[in-house]
Amino acid sequence: MADAGTRRRRGGGRAGAVTRRGHAVIEQMPWSIPINNDRPTEPLTEDGVQAIHEGAMRILEEIGIAIYNDEARAIFKEAGCIVDGDNVRMGREFIMEMVALSPSEWTITPRNPDRKVTIGGKNMLFTNVSSPPNYWDLELGRKIPGRREHCQNLLKLSQYFNCIHVIGGYPVEPVDLHPSIRHLDVIFDKLTLTDKAIHGYSLGKERIEDIMEMVRIAGGLTQEEFEETPRMFTNINSTSPLKHDIPMLDGWMRCARRNQGLIVTPFTLAGAMAPVTMAGAVAQSLAEGLCAVALAQYIRPGAACMIGTFTSNVDMKSGAPAFGTPEYMRATQMTGQLARFYGLPMRASGVCAANVPDAQATWETSNSLWSAVNSGTNFVYHAAGWLEGGLIASPEKFVMDCEILQHIQKYFDPAITATGPDEIALDAIRDGDAEGNFFGIAHTQERYSTAFYQPFLSDWRNFEGWELDGAVWTHERAHRIFKEIIENFEAPALDIAIHEELSDFVARRKAEGGVPTDY
Amino acid sequence: MADAGTRRRRGGGRAGAVTRRGHAVIEQMPWSIPINNDRPTEPLTEDGVQAIHEGAMRILEEIGIAIYNDEARAIFKEAGCIVDGDNVRMGREFIMEMVALSPSEWTITPRNPDRKVTIGGKNMLFTNVSSPPNYWDLELGRKIPGRREHCQNLLKLSQYFNCIHVIGGYPVEPVDLHPSIRHLDVIFDKLTLTDKAIHGYSLGKERIEDIMEMVRIAGGLTQEEFEETPRMFTNINSTSPLKHDIPMLDGWMRCARRNQGLIVTPFTLAGAMAPVTMAGAVAQSLAEGLCAVALAQYIRPGAACMIGTFTSNVDMKSGAPAFGTPEYMRATQMTGQLARFYGLPMRASGVCAANVPDAQATWETSNSLWSAVNSGTNFVYHAAGWLEGGLIASPEKFVMDCEILQHIQKYFDPAITATGPDEIALDAIRDGDAEGNFFGIAHTQERYSTAFYQPFLSDWRNFEGWELDGAVWTHERAHRIFKEIIENFEAPALDIAIHEELSDFVARRKAEGGVPTDY
Repeated sequence: MADAGTRRRRGGGRAGAVTRRGHAVIEQMPWSIPINNDRPTEPLTEDGVQAIHEGAMRILEEIGIAIYNDEARAIFKEAGCIVDGDNVRMGREFIMEMVALSPSEWTITPRNPDRKVTIGGKNMLFTNVSSPPNYWDLELGRKIPGRREHCQNLLKLSQYFNCIHVIGGYPVEPVDLHPSIRHLDVIFDKLTLTDKAIHGYSLGKERIEDIMEMVRIAGGLTQEEFEETPRMFTNINSTSPLKHDIPMLDGWMRCARRNQGLIVTPFTLAGAMAPVTMAGAVAQSLAEGLCAVALAQYIRPGAACMIGTFTSNVDMKSGAPAFGTPEYMRATQMTGQLARFYGLPMRASGVCAANVPDAQATWETSNSLWSAVNSGTNFVYHAAGWLEGGLIASPEKFVMDCEILQHIQKYFDPAITATGPDEIALDAIRDGDAEGNFFGIAHTQERYSTAFYQPFLSDWRNFEGWELDGAVWTHERAHRIFKEIIENFEAPALDIAIHEELSDFVARRKAEGGVPTDY
Repeated sequence: MADAGTRRRRGGGRAGAVTRRGHAVIEQMPWSIPINNDRPTEPLTEDGVQAIHEGAMRILEEIGIAIYNDEARAIFKEAGCIVDGDNVRMGREFIMEMVALSPSEWTITPRNPDRKVTIGGKNMLFTNVSSPPNYWDLELGRKIPGRREHCQNLLKLSQYFNCIHVIGGYPVEPVDLHPSIRHLDVIFDKLTLTDKAIHGYSLGKERIEDIMEMVRIAGGLTQEEFEETPRMFTNINSTSPLKHDIPMLDGWMRCARRNQGLIVTPFTLAGAMAPVTMAGAVAQSLAEGLCAVALAQYIRPGAACMIGTFTSNVDMKSGAPAFGTPEYMRATQMTGQLARFYGLPMRASGVCAANVPDAQATWETSNSLWSAVNSGTNFVYHAAGWLEGGLIASPEKFVMDCEILQHIQKYFDPAITATGPDEIALDAIRDGDAEGNFFGIAHTQERYSTAFYQPFLSDWRNFEGWELDGAVWTHERAHRIFKEIIENFEAPALDIAIHEELSDFVARRKAEGGVPTDY
């Protein structure tokens, strides 16, 4: 493999192989990055923003963060922070100086350069559900541990739907693959079944290094090219409250050094791992996130960082986590205000507590997705397929969520709210035909095919038409679409030599025993 | 009945009779008027607002509105408008002068003065679904014409749920009651099963006069007291494009003269009864609405008017109406901007095209309800119970929608976004117990019971707990809650003498033959 780093081949869909197009199971919206031009909803006054900022700074200055990774702790010490055992306290000057180095916009360029995405600004990107240990589908009718086949199917959905812009973590954990080699097989699946930007878990140095190498191979890149600009990203979680563990920070620092995308997402569940008050939970989340951003910037000024929010609340009766609640929505909006204050792109999520793809799943997911919209979120993790607070991945839920994601994409189409003379349409109103019906007139006919959002899953027929066709409820229709997409799926083009090189890499690393699993 | 107008008795829940409280089937949020302090989402620039305003004015000035009601046409003529056959053209000076007389806030005081509501400002009110001809519930499993019993059950839900502030039109059309006496029976049911402000249909002079008289009786009011301040409201629809019919304008003028609440809601379905472009559909809707407001203000300066939006789009494949679409959301927000431009309170709706209470019903309804929130809507019609584009009322959907309405109510709770020292909670973060769990600490325990939204329908248990309890999907849980509420329903207190007087009135008017049905 010594020569791999010097080979130059393009792995993208535009290269050598003929791009094949799958059977058109549904008519979906084209690949396009939604641009959110709306003014965000901002529940905090300027004083409120300052109060939460002050809270986050005082947490970092007075309470500190437990940094279990020795190397990271040494770096903080070198930077002038106060290290006491595992505890690291850091001054706001250091934090703010480092955060100021973090770019407000950056890109990820996957093996297919047409799938390049820009993180930050007014861009809003969607990723698949990530990391549920379990799988549920309608045919199965029960919850079972995830398998590679489920994971592959969900990756196929992630590739198929144009409204999914980036591939997140494993869409379901394939528990049938041994942890020592799981990343090799799933990253191979990700890089061959999809051509979009991918995530790599920071779970020990060997894994993240393997993943970066595979992404490099898939892109036909030299080592230099790989590091020129982010080609993939990782997402780490702090261990709330106020702790960062060893393997996650290890991966974080490795990705920072190699100029890959970095997202830090504390899981601050108000009333459990964070204060019961949302402002406190947000302040704590920011403290946990900002110190990771500072670390990355110290290592590599200008590192591509994004701050995530996963602040929600528990059910105070049972202690169970709740998602898509009013408190979740407001926490997301508050975090949005603070992310803009720090000049950092923001990640939020599409989440629910529901166990099956029903009405509750939909209102909780809608609440979280629309709060992502009106908080100015740039990157929506778990945007499709999530159930049971992230413990279940469901293909029906995935398909259903994509309908909502397409709503959001269309919602941002400035044509809807255009107010030129052609849109005010005074002449059309004046000249409406005798029965006052606009359907047949030229103004309508000229705009006929593109005027409105066209759903692929919503059934707009009247009750009788719907009943005659079998009275199929939405989750059942979603199941059928899922099956059809999988049946007709064709993988995106990939140079056969690159495919082989990836296979060889996986085989070699397996032969070497994979990675340690006792981290 | 000659003495009825002079009797003075209070009909409200605070009067004579002991207020009975129904069995607590669910723990719901208390009666409270949501205050929307968010800055609305405004897709239009100032120029865009001006362009739509200009469009509406030119429609009124250059194209005109067909006014089929002779009396109304005569009033427009008297006011200086240009009348040509049924067509009335009106100058913007007249319109704007009249609209400026319309109050930006007004109240409705029902028989129970505790249920008084303020329309306009930052207030956001919710009403039940109104006027579907058909009924569907899970037990029935099919769509059938509405009956009085269905209508009564939906009125009971409307009374039971504190998040329903106002009773709209018939929650389902009771087709088993003859049209000549239907209004007598249903208004009797409304006034005895609920104590909230009610709607009366403007469907011929006899009906609206009967309704006003019954509302007066129920409130124990003199004629003067009835007219002192709005005690009820009507909602009229124009016949789009650009027509107002005879009975609706008749009721409109009668209610204006007697100082009752007035909502005008054009049904401008883009691509069918309005231009295919949303700005044109909104401009047309405003023209149709503003001329009715002008008429009311000319009759009674300061009349309590509200402008409604029901602008949506058709499915361009079938011509079927679509609801809760991205276009619907943007039209609602655009209309919100124009309503604020004119200083008028705004009505929008909770709507969907789905035929059953499933995921599609939920995302379409969520889209419409959240666009009501972020458009600054004051009054949400059809906020609970609507299916099939308004052709079906469903009690399960009603119960489900109330969960979303409670989300909205809680979302507006300023406590969630408070940022005082107690909320930033630095001490709680500092003193978190050894395991870093906030659940048991004083800061949490003090806020334990009220910190977060507590759902009555969402099931937040994990999959196993939910499965052990029968794996009941949301619409089935909603059905059970519906049945329990009806089983345990107790009507609000009403003075027995008033109850009798209402019964007598209904009996007398029935004996007189009800009202003509050949309007």
